Amino acid sequence: MFQHLPAVVVLLTVLLQCGTAYAVGRARALYGVKAPATSGHPLFERAFRVQMNTLESTLMFLPALWLAATYSAPLWSGIAGLVWVLGRVWYAVGYLRDPARREGGFIVAAVGLLAVLGMGAIGLGKALLLG
Amino acid sequence: MFQHLPAVVVLLTVLLQCGTAYAVGRARALYGVKAPATSGHPLFERAFRVQMNTLESTLMFLPALWLAATYSAPLWSGIAGLVWVLGRVWYAVGYLRDPARREGGFIVAAVGLLAVLGMGAIGLGKALLLG
Amino acid sequence: MFQHLPAVVVLLTVLLQCGTAYAVGRARALYGVKAPATSGHPLFERAFRVQMNTLESTLMFLPALWLAATYSAPLWSGIAGLVWVLGRVWYAVGYLRDPARREGGFIVAAVGLLAVLGMGAIGLGKALLLG
Repeated sequence: MFQHLPAVVVLLTVLLQCGTAYAVGRARALYGVKAPATSGHPLFERAFRVQMNTLESTLMFLPALWLAATYSAPLWSGIAGLVWVLGRVWYAVGYLRDPARREGGFIVAAVGLLAVLGMGAIGLGKALLLG
Repeated sequence: MFQHLPAVVVLLTVLLQCGTAYAVGRARALYGVKAPATSGHPLFERAFRVQMNTLESTLMFLPALWLAATYSAPLWSGIAGLVWVLGRVWYAVGYLRDPARREGGFIVAAVGLLAVLGMGAIGLGKALLLG
Repeated sequence: MFQHLPAVVVLLTVLLQCGTAYAVGRARALYGVKAPATSGHPLFERAFRVQMNTLESTLMFLPALWLAATYSAPLWSGIAGLVWVLGRVWYAVGYLRDPARREGGFIVAAVGLLAVLGMGAIGLGKALLLG
């Protein structure tokens, strides 16, 4: 069962993106910011920044998760991945309420990202040395 | 042959990104919006928004396509993926002509995304239950 | 050992994203651009554009690299991938110094991207023909 944990994390990552995209769509309607504008109301801009920052982080996280799951242990990669997802959910919810409250989740997510990145890099290094 | 259909969708997704990036570069030259600016002319801003929205959607779609192709049937995942690509092309072409005409393609792409996401989630759920 | 070269490229791609994200965070602090703003100082805007352009390009590159590594030779895919990474590092460093100096790296990265895309497309085409 543990071998599927990274895939569970991938599913949660997709749902996280859906959530931050939904928050932007809702803010667009709520504060009357018509597409293609991405500014015009502070609360819309906040939701938009949450989505973009989540996207930026996801593009570092998913390749790192793949490296860790392929070259290291799927169980520990999956657990570190869950830490990243939880940190990112906390970051998004905190930031949407108050930009000053985005730091806790950001740090937790960074720890999760560094963990999968470290596991992936070490596992890949071992594979290269062993030929 | 069907087992390669998801890979065909991946290739089309990359070409779609190339297309929306090309439209932004062309609009930059055409309307004299110098980098690093991302605003200054409504038609440039529209092309830029199309690229960014395509990018946001791709980062939900590709991991979901991987889940569906891995945990469900490659043929049906590929067909749902083609629906997403077609919807996204329609969205991009429609939006570039008139922001009001972006809804049809958006809805078709959303159906394709929900289909791969649903197939991936159900397939993963089954794999977890079967251990 | 060569079979791991695409994974090395994936690792370098993640580190590249970390680098461009770090440059944005540093510019945010240095030029006093408070989140969620993404404008307000030309040098911050430049760092932000470098990050976003790197992100846009990465979302074309990684799926194309996967196609090439899966359907073509891992060694040549990895070498073309290294060309893309080097081009992108050159682009980022050049652009951060002077927007006029971003072209060299951009062109090198485009050559690397076209190479992996071409290898992936040809390899996939062969796989489809052979059934």
